[in-house]
Parts: sequence; structure tokens; C-alpha cells
Amino acid sequence: MNVRFAILGAGRIGQVHARAIASIPTADLVAVAESSAEAAKAVQDRYGCEIRTIDQIAASDDIDAVVICTPTDTHADLIETFARAGKAIFCEKPIDLSVDRVKQALATVEALNARLMIGFNRRFDPDFMALKAAIDDGRIGEVEMVTITSRDPGAPPPAYIKVSGGIFRDMTIHDFDMARWLLGEPVVSVQAAASVLTDPAIADLGDYDSVNVILTTGSGKQCTITNTRRATYGYDQRIEVLGSRGAVSAENHREANVEIATADGYLRPPLLNFFMTRYTAAYANEIAAFVDAVATDGPMPATGEDGLKALELAEAALDSVRTGKVVALD
Amino acid sequence: MNVRFAILGAGRIGQVHARAIASIPTADLVAVAESSAEAAKAVQDRYGCEIRTIDQIAASDDIDAVVICTPTDTHADLIETFARAGKAIFCEKPIDLSVDRVKQALATVEALNARLMIGFNRRFDPDFMALKAAIDDGRIGEVEMVTITSRDPGAPPPAYIKVSGGIFRDMTIHDFDMARWLLGEPVVSVQAAASVLTDPAIADLGDYDSVNVILTTGSGKQCTITNTRRATYGYDQRIEVLGSRGAVSAENHREANVEIATADGYLRPPLLNFFMTRYTAAYANEIAAFVDAVATDGPMPATGEDGLKALELAEAALDSVRTGKVVALD
Amino acid sequence: MNVRFAILGAGRIGQVHARAIASIPTADLVAVAESSAEAAKAVQDRYGCEIRTIDQIAASDDIDAVVICTPTDTHADLIETFARAGKAIFCEKPIDLSVDRVKQALATVEALNARLMIGFNRRFDPDFMALKAAIDDGRIGEVEMVTITSRDPGAPPPAYIKVSGGIFRDMTIHDFDMARWLLGEPVVSVQAAASVLTDPAIADLGDYDSVNVILTTGSGKQCTITNTRRATYGYDQRIEVLGSRGAVSAENHREANVEIATADGYLRPPLLNFFMTRYTAAYANEIAAFVDAVATDGPMPATGEDGLKALELAEAALDSVRTGKVVALD
Amino acid sequence: MNVRFAILGAGRIGQVHARAIASIPTADLVAVAESSAEAAKAVQDRYGCEIRTIDQIAASDDIDAVVICTPTDTHADLIETFARAGKAIFCEKPIDLSVDRVKQALATVEALNARLMIGFNRRFDPDFMALKAAIDDGRIGEVEMVTITSRDPGAPPPAYIKVSGGIFRDMTIHDFDMARWLLGEPVVSVQAAASVLTDPAIADLGDYDSVNVILTTGSGKQCTITNTRRATYGYDQRIEVLGSRGAVSAENHREANVEIATADGYLRPPLLNFFMTRYTAAYANEIAAFVDAVATDGPMPATGEDGLKALELAEAALDSVRTGKVVALD
Repeated sequence: MNVRFAILGAGRIGQVHARAIASIPTADLVAVAESSAEAAKAVQDRYGCEIRTIDQIAASDDIDAVVICTPTDTHADLIETFARAGKAIFCEKPIDLSVDRVKQALATVEALNARLMIGFNRRFDPDFMALKAAIDDGRIGEVEMVTITSRDPGAPPPAYIKVSGGIFRDMTIHDFDMARWLLGEPVVSVQAAASVLTDPAIADLGDYDSVNVILTTGSGKQCTITNTRRATYGYDQRIEVLGSRGAVSAENHREANVEIATADGYLRPPLLNFFMTRYTAAYANEIAAFVDAVATDGPMPATGEDGLKALELAEAALDSVRTGKVVALD
Repeated sequence: MNVRFAILGAGRIGQVHARAIASIPTADLVAVAESSAEAAKAVQDRYGCEIRTIDQIAASDDIDAVVICTPTDTHADLIETFARAGKAIFCEKPIDLSVDRVKQALATVEALNARLMIGFNRRFDPDFMALKAAIDDGRIGEVEMVTITSRDPGAPPPAYIKVSGGIFRDMTIHDFDMARWLLGEPVVSVQAAASVLTDPAIADLGDYDSVNVILTTGSGKQCTITNTRRATYGYDQRIEVLGSRGAVSAENHREANVEIATADGYLRPPLLNFFMTRYTAAYANEIAAFVDAVATDGPMPATGEDGLKALELAEAALDSVRTGKVVALD
Repeated sequence: MNVRFAILGAGRIGQVHARAIASIPTADLVAVAESSAEAAKAVQDRYGCEIRTIDQIAASDDIDAVVICTPTDTHADLIETFARAGKAIFCEKPIDLSVDRVKQALATVEALNARLMIGFNRRFDPDFMALKAAIDDGRIGEVEMVTITSRDPGAPPPAYIKVSGGIFRDMTIHDFDMARWLLGEPVVSVQAAASVLTDPAIADLGDYDSVNVILTTGSGKQCTITNTRRATYGYDQRIEVLGSRGAVSAENHREANVEIATADGYLRPPLLNFFMTRYTAAYANEIAAFVDAVATDGPMPATGEDGLKALELAEAALDSVRTGKVVALD
Repeated sequence: MNVRFAILGAGRIGQVHARAIASIPTADLVAVAESSAEAAKAVQDRYGCEIRTIDQIAASDDIDAVVICTPTDTHADLIETFARAGKAIFCEKPIDLSVDRVKQALATVEALNARLMIGFNRRFDPDFMALKAAIDDGRIGEVEMVTITSRDPGAPPPAYIKVSGGIFRDMTIHDFDMARWLLGEPVVSVQAAASVLTDPAIADLGDYDSVNVILTTGSGKQCTITNTRRATYGYDQRIEVLGSRGAVSAENHREANVEIATADGYLRPPLLNFFMTRYTAAYANEIAAFVDAVATDGPMPATGEDGLKALELAEAALDSVRTGKVVALD
């Protein structure tokens, strides 16, 4: 039987997930909950689903799973609500900005034996999956060094920075998850540097726009992450892994695979400059993976624990910047 | 109002077009005609359309446009039928293997002032569109030389070769259309070489598997096309255009954008090796372009005339191989 | 014992060869002959060699080998002179513009059992050598299709075009040699197209600036050559070979291996735009190969016969353009 | 008048410099000093120079400049000796492993107003020069982040590691110099991580084989350096600089610019795997730059101060690894 879905929140990312569900033959989009009547109507018209309140969805017999795309500060509450309602839960990262609140919500999930997946979409990017497969197939031997370059085309609006928890929690957090996924063993120490180079307004908000992080595992594997809030040439997303027998890297995605040669040189187009176009396939794949895990009662490919660990790395990085010391993790 | 569609033929390519129609907000898939009850049912189940006969579709008031995906030898008849029925027509290439039959069908289309688009999907590939845009924007000056490399991963089955009209009509024909599209002026002469290098069975069928063609326009612009039926590394589809001020080229598509470096060197994955995965975006775009042309009553982006001209080039190339002479076109 | 050299002609290419000889530990530059006293003096000062006349060099006991870098119309005479003088001969291509005169000179060489190497420098380019090695090592199986792209940054001066024998004899001739070297079996037919697209003055001189050639061997292998006299982005020199099990290609050389990414895209520098900088290593390698062949009495890596065959292909291509027919070779 | 040279030490790198001097028209190689009679004789035979002792060279009137290629522990003494002798000095890095000894030697140089250049060859690599030129030309705006990837094909022998001062002083030191050269302002803090991942014997020697370093300047610019002693795919030397308006990167050098495509994918050769072949042009360019500075009495392009600063960064990195703290520089 198909997995029957409700979408909670029909903003930008909610619409992406609605489209993904509609395109999966083994999934049905049954309902949407959304405070904007207009946005709710748009999803209803496009996919033929019903508009319901969150309470109605929690009480619905014809819903197996929910996708939480509401603002971050509602995530933990909704996870608890739907864990109690017995629904499988897909929640956008982060679960919460507070490590304690995350732990509390995960305790509820565990106590109720609920199914929870966190939306670390990059794990489902076809190129990063191919990179991971090369590692898992032993093509490069034992992993030694991971290098993650992750640069946004531009900074988010000040209103977002104010509530996002800062660059380590809203941006680097994706890279922390990739690092954990690729290193294959726990990170035991974190050190970081952070500056404001692109816009003094970011400093006024108490945040940074340019950071470098070094993570180290118990056996000495290392990962560097470099982030900036401004890359004029597009959304720069590269990963490189060095192993004992070789290395594997994943390249950026361009607007088109063409090249123009003139007396000035050879020009290729800039990178796709929006995370939704860059990660179109990843967003579709992650929902398909969730459907599969729900339908087969299999393991979730990105768990609440993954969400918690990434958040802890973000806190440690911030702590390192503030203290000028390497921060040890338990 | 949405453009209401019927699909004629629900084989491999028919399903591709059905999916494209279903994903376009301004189009509806109303009916499918298909001799295999099972295949027809599959489309009905997937997209919620009705199963009708071709005659029923021709007589339907709720159908604006048809997509002809039936075998080649039915194309011309169906074009005439639906031109008479007043439907907009999208027809897979070729219209027919006989230039005379094509001319006859096009005369009917013209007499009835019917709308006809031919499925030259490559014109709608995003990379080739970007390449064409670079030319149209004057980035490389005046076009002088076009180089088209087009190699299939493997030969089609003998049964197909027997009825396909041979490599120039079933494979090079796409490249002839690209050449015409890019050269921007009529081809006046054709010369070609052809051999059998991959499988003697192809020679037994009277066909070739390895060909090179040179096209020349009235002002002396030249285009070379190189085709083979076997490229072990995947579906090789490249175009390069030299102009008076520079050059533009479009690259191949790989299975993934990763690279593995070891003591043996740097290895990237082979190319996508199936035309349907390679041209996924092109197939979606061409139906969207057709919908747009129908909805706005605008010009068709690939006309019956385009289908005829490409076929004439194929005949000329074959003639050149057989006579050892440059063949002039009117 | 070292191979003792005289250079005949100290123009641009003569100086390149002088430098190569000076850098080879097993070779000595003993003398130079040059009509310009100033140019002769420059070589003498730079390399510490003597200035002698051609007659003196022919009569010298302390000269083992000569490098002929004089104007083309003197090549055949000098080959005969030094064949009689018992010197090993390295001669820049072409031997002569007349096939008959070439045959005559080669007959003399053969009758005297003289050692002659022709300066087809591209065979000694490290990348093309690596490409050839990949073929010879069986990496791509049996060779089927060769594609040679060869574009000059700009046309030579009219004075040169007047005496060069035209584009097929002065430019394509290098590509004909590469085609023969890579195809591995005799070319049996030639067809070509030629236009003037860059400068009408070239037409006035009876030459072309834009040509495409198709060569076919007895077993049906094919080679295409595309040439133009103007590539704004530099000296474009690429080769690609398709075989039964794969393909191998050699890339261009840029001014530097850097890339600049901005909002306009990713820009790499143009190509090296001068044959002497592009083929620096090839020029050094070919003299080293000559020294080696002389010192070991081994086979010459590019023979007079190779020079003759390339010239015959040039004549056949010109004939094809003029007659509009495929030209068969013996 | 030509700059007249003596080479001190005719080992591997001494021979590289001898060849460079011999190829520069405005330089003469007059003498060599070398404890191995055989090695001295080889240089004498190859370049026609005299064999002298170090004392003789210091006392020679016909020597303008010396190139110090002797073991590291002799560098400081020789710099002082030849500063007193009034010779221009080119010294291989490092000046000494002790910061104090370096300062002492530089004080002597300064007191005597002697000319001293340190052999930071990478500043003279054509690609890195092109990268630097792009920055200096304002192509990428203000420099913000520098990323240096520097991996050796294999670890040096244990005997070398014992005396080299460890990975930060013998390997990263080159990257510290590149970082300083590219950041354009003083580094104020250093943090580093270091592990042994390739061979436990390296740990036994008290050294590391895998390190990451973050440098920060006063205005918050950052540089990351990643080093390992083992890259199976060759000598990996890449630099990438992000600026306010774009980014510039320099690519690796391969054994050949070819690519083989088969069913396994597209394979390019591994990287040049020896620093002398990778940096052939850089070695030639640095001596030419030294000759130029001596001949014109112009500024030295890499000074003793540069050597000192790079060494101080190495010490700071080691200190950071040992203390787990960010190390501030004066």
C-alpha cells in the first residue's frame, strides 16, 4: 500500500517536498497544513490534496507520515506531537537550536519507538552518493582526510541571521553532517576560525561570514570545512576525500555544460546559484528514501541522532572560536 | 485553458511524453491509444487518463493535440488523419522513410493549415540551447565550422536496422537537423564516407556502422558529422561550433560528477549510455515548447519542413557514399 | 662518440634546432651555415660553433650530421648534396612541393643508402606520444576513427601563401602525417571540402582557409581533419582516436593552468598561440630521436617516404576539392 | 657583464641550479665546490666550469654570486662567509632549523648590506605566478580565503625526517611561504592539527604525516593548508584563492594531457610525482630572477626575512598542535 502523506508548512521547501511526493508512485499526498490560505490553496490545486489543520492531521486515520517544513522553533514540538500520533516523521533540519531541547524531543521519539528522519538532503545528492559509494567500495582505501568546500552565493537576510543560530548552526551544520557521514568514526575534537569579511552588518548581528573548521577523529583522521557567505560565481559545493590508496572528489554543477573560447580565454558558465536547483535530485531522492524506509520498516538514512551530533559540532566550533582552543567532544 | 492531449502509442517514448505532459501545469493528458492492452492500462493507472481508439481520439471534442509515438510507417497516415481532425500534432521523427511520402503528408498539413511539430528533441537539450544562445548572442561572431560527434553505445537490433532506413536515416538524421539548426543557412552539398567496422552482420543488412559526413553551405560554412554505432564509454554527444570571433562547445553528460584518483590515474565515470537518460530534460522541454506553441498559436520550433530537409540530407549522404561524389542539393 | 652537427640555415627554426643540439649531452654543434652574417654570428656566439659555407660543411671530416632549415626550394638539392657527402640528414618538411622532385631526391638517398629523417615534429610531442602509446598498448582496441582538429591562430602572410603550395601542403600536411601515423594502414581514398571564410585575399591567392578532409583506409578506418587559418583562442591542436574498446584523446596546451571564477563564469586562459611554444618539447625530442637513430644506426622515426606520402595526400585532397569526387590512392 | 656563478654543493638540487645557470645567456657558471670528487667532475664535464674549494670561491675575484645547495646545517655559516666575501647569495631553504640562528645570520647579512635570496621556488612556478598576477590585477577583488593543498607522493626516508625538523619545517614551510605571498598581510594567528596515518614509524621519529593548518591575518583573512606525506596519484600541488569578486585556482600537472575512455570511464594519467619535474620551470625561473636582481641591483624576490617568517609559522603550528591552542604571532 502507498505511504499516505501530509505536508506541514507549504513554503518554499514544503512545495519541493510536495512535488517529490507527487512524483513517487508508492506515495500519495493526502493533506497539507499551512497558515497562509493562499499557499495552502496552491498546493491543493496543484496536487489535488486536502487542506487540514495540524490537529486534524495528527488525528487522521488516512495519514501514515508527515513532512515538517514549518519554522525551526516549531520542529521539536511537532516531532513530539506526531511521535505521539504514531506517524512516521520527516523533519527539516535543525530539530532545534538548543541541544537540550533536541535531546528532550529525541527522548520522546525513542520512548515511543517513533520513526524519525532528518532532512540532511546532501546525503542524497547523486554525486555525493557516488563519492560515498567509491569509499564504501574500497576504491580509495582507508579514509584519511576530508575536505569540504561550501560557499553560498550570498548571505541570507539579517532577519534570518538573527534567528538562525549563526553560520555554524545554519550553514556549516550541513557540512558537519557530511563530515560525519564520510569520516566513518566519531569526531573527538574541533577547532575553528571565524571572521567577518563580506559585510560589517553581519558582525553587528554577532555572526561570522567566513569560517574554517578542522575536525579530528579518534584515530587521527581529519576533516576541513571552509565556508563563506559570498561566492560571486555561484553555489560552491565540493567534497574531496583522501584515502590510503587514492582520493575521490565531487564537482560543482553549472548552469550549462558549455564552454566559449575567445581571445580572452575559455569561459564556462557560473555555478547553479540556488540550493534548490543545485540539490533538485537530492530533495527528490531523500523523500524517496524516507518512503522506502517507512514502507519497508527499514532503518532511517539520517536519524535524530545525526541531527543532534551535527548541532553539537556547531556548538563546539563556536566554542573554539570564542576560546581559541581545541574543543574536545565526548 | 489547458492543452488537452492524447498519446498515440504507449511504448518507451510514448511513456516519456506522457510523463512530460503530466508534469506541465498547462497541459492535461486526457487519453491514450495503444494496441497493447497492458501498456494502455499502465498509462491509464499512472496518469488517470482514458483509453480510446485512434478513431475515437480523432473524433473527440475534448482533445486539442496528439503526440504520435507509433511505428514510423504509420506516421504519415496519422499526421494526415489528425490534420483533418483539426488537432495540433506532435510527431516523432521521421515522418516517413520516403521523401515523396513526406512531401505528400506535408502538403496535406499545409493545405489544411494544420499545426505540426517534429520531435527533434536535441534542439531542446539545455546545453545545446545554451550553445545556440551563445551563437545567437554573437558571442563567437559569424558561424564558420560545426563539428558534431554523435556515437551510440551499441548498435540497435538487426530487426530495427532492417526497417530503419539505415544509419543516415535513423541516427545521422538527428545530427543533420542539428547541423541545419546551427549553420543558419541552407546546405548546398553533401559528401560522406561509410564503413562497417563493428559487426559484419550490419554489412549483411546493407547498412554501415561508421560514417563521416561533410556538409557545405552556399557561403562556404562547413559541418562535419561523425557517427559510430559503438562507443564503449557511453552515449557520446558533443557539438562544437567555430565562429569568426571564437568557438563554443557542449560537453557530454556522465553518470556522476565524481573523479577517483589512484596510482593508475584520475578516473571519471563513463557517459550516460541511454538516449532517454541523456536527453531527459530535452524530452520534457520539447513537449513544453509544443504546449506553448499550441497555447499561444506561435510558430512551431521544429516543423515538418525541418523533418523533410533532414531526410533529404540523409538521402544525399547515402548517394555520396554510393557514387563517390559530392552531392548537390537544390 | 658524440654526433657532430652542422645547422644549415639559422632562421627561426634553425635556432630552435641549434638549442636542441646544444642541450643534448651526446651531440655537439660544430658549425652553422647561414647567408645572413648577423644571424650566423648570433649562433656562433651563443653556442661556440664555427661559421662555414655549405660546401665547406659537405667537405668537413668533423661533421656527422646536418639539419636542413633553409627555404623549401633548396631542400631537395641539399638532401642530394649531403647524401653524396655521406652525412646523416635531418630535413624540415616538406622535401619539395613537387611529388616528382621528392621522388627523385628520395631515389638518390636510397641509391646512396643515406640516412634521412623528415621533421614531422608532432610525432615527438609528449602528449601525442602518450596517445600513440595508449593505442600501441592495446588500451582502445583496434583503431577505427581518428579525428584531428588543427587550427592556426592566424593566417600566414600573403608572401608565404604564394609559395607554400597552399593550405593542404603547408598546414594539413602535418595532419596527414599524424593520420598515417595513427591509422596504422595505408589511406586508399581522400575526399575534401574547402572554402575561404576568413579573408577574401586568400581566395585571390588561389588558396583556402577552411578545410575538412575525410581519409579512408582499405579496411574502412576513417580519419577526419579539420583546419582553419584563424582560431581567436589560440593554436588549437587536438587529436582523438576511437577504437573498438575505447577512445583516447590529447588536449590543448594553455598559457597557464589557472582558472578565474567570477559572476561571468569560469575563465581559463587561451591556448598557447605559437607553434614554437606549443611544440617546444616536440622540437627537442625530434632532434634527440635523430641523434639516437644516428648514434645507434637505428631506423629513422620519420622517413623520406613519410614525407612523400603526406605530400601525396595533400595533392589528393586538392584534387578532390577541384573535382568534387573521392580520390583513390594507389 | 654576465653574472659569474659558483655552485656550492653538486647534489640533486645543485645540478638543477647548474643547468639553469648554463641556460641563461647573462649568467656564467665559473666554479663548483663539492665534497664528492665524482659529482664535482660530472658538473665540470657537463658545463666546463672549474672545481674549487669553498675557501677558494670566497676568495675568487671572478665570482659574483654563489648558490648554496649544501646540507641545511651549513647554510647559516655559508651565508655569513659569503656575505663577508661580498658575493650575492642564493640559498636553498631553510636557512637553519633554529629561529635564533636564522636571526643571527640575517643580522650579519644586514650589517654587511649583503644580497640574499632564499629558494622558495614555488613563487616562480608559471601557474602560481599567473594566479598571483590575477590577484594583483584585481580580477578577484580583495583576497579573503586561501586554500593550499600540498601532498607528497611518499614520505622521505627516516634518516631525512630525523634531521629535517619535522613536517612543518621541511614540507609545510613552502606552503607557509605561499600563504604569506598570497595573503598580502601579516599572519597573526596559527592553529593546526596533526596525525600519523600512513606509517607508525613516523610517529616513532616524533613527526606527523597528515596535517591541517589555519592561518588568520589581522583583518580576518584566512588560509588553510592541508599536507600529507602520501598521495598515491602523484605530487598534488593546488592553490585556490577566494576574493570579494571571484576566485582563482591553479591546477596540477599530469604526466601527459591525454585521456582514455573505456567502459570503466575516462582515465587521465596520474600527476607528475617528483618535485623536480613538477617544478622544472620554477627552478629555472627562480635562478633567472636572482640573476636579474643581481644584475640590476634590484630587490630580491624572496628574502631572508621571508625565510625567517615561514620558519616562525612552522614553529607556531607545531606549538599549536602540542598545546591545543591558537598561537598568536607578534
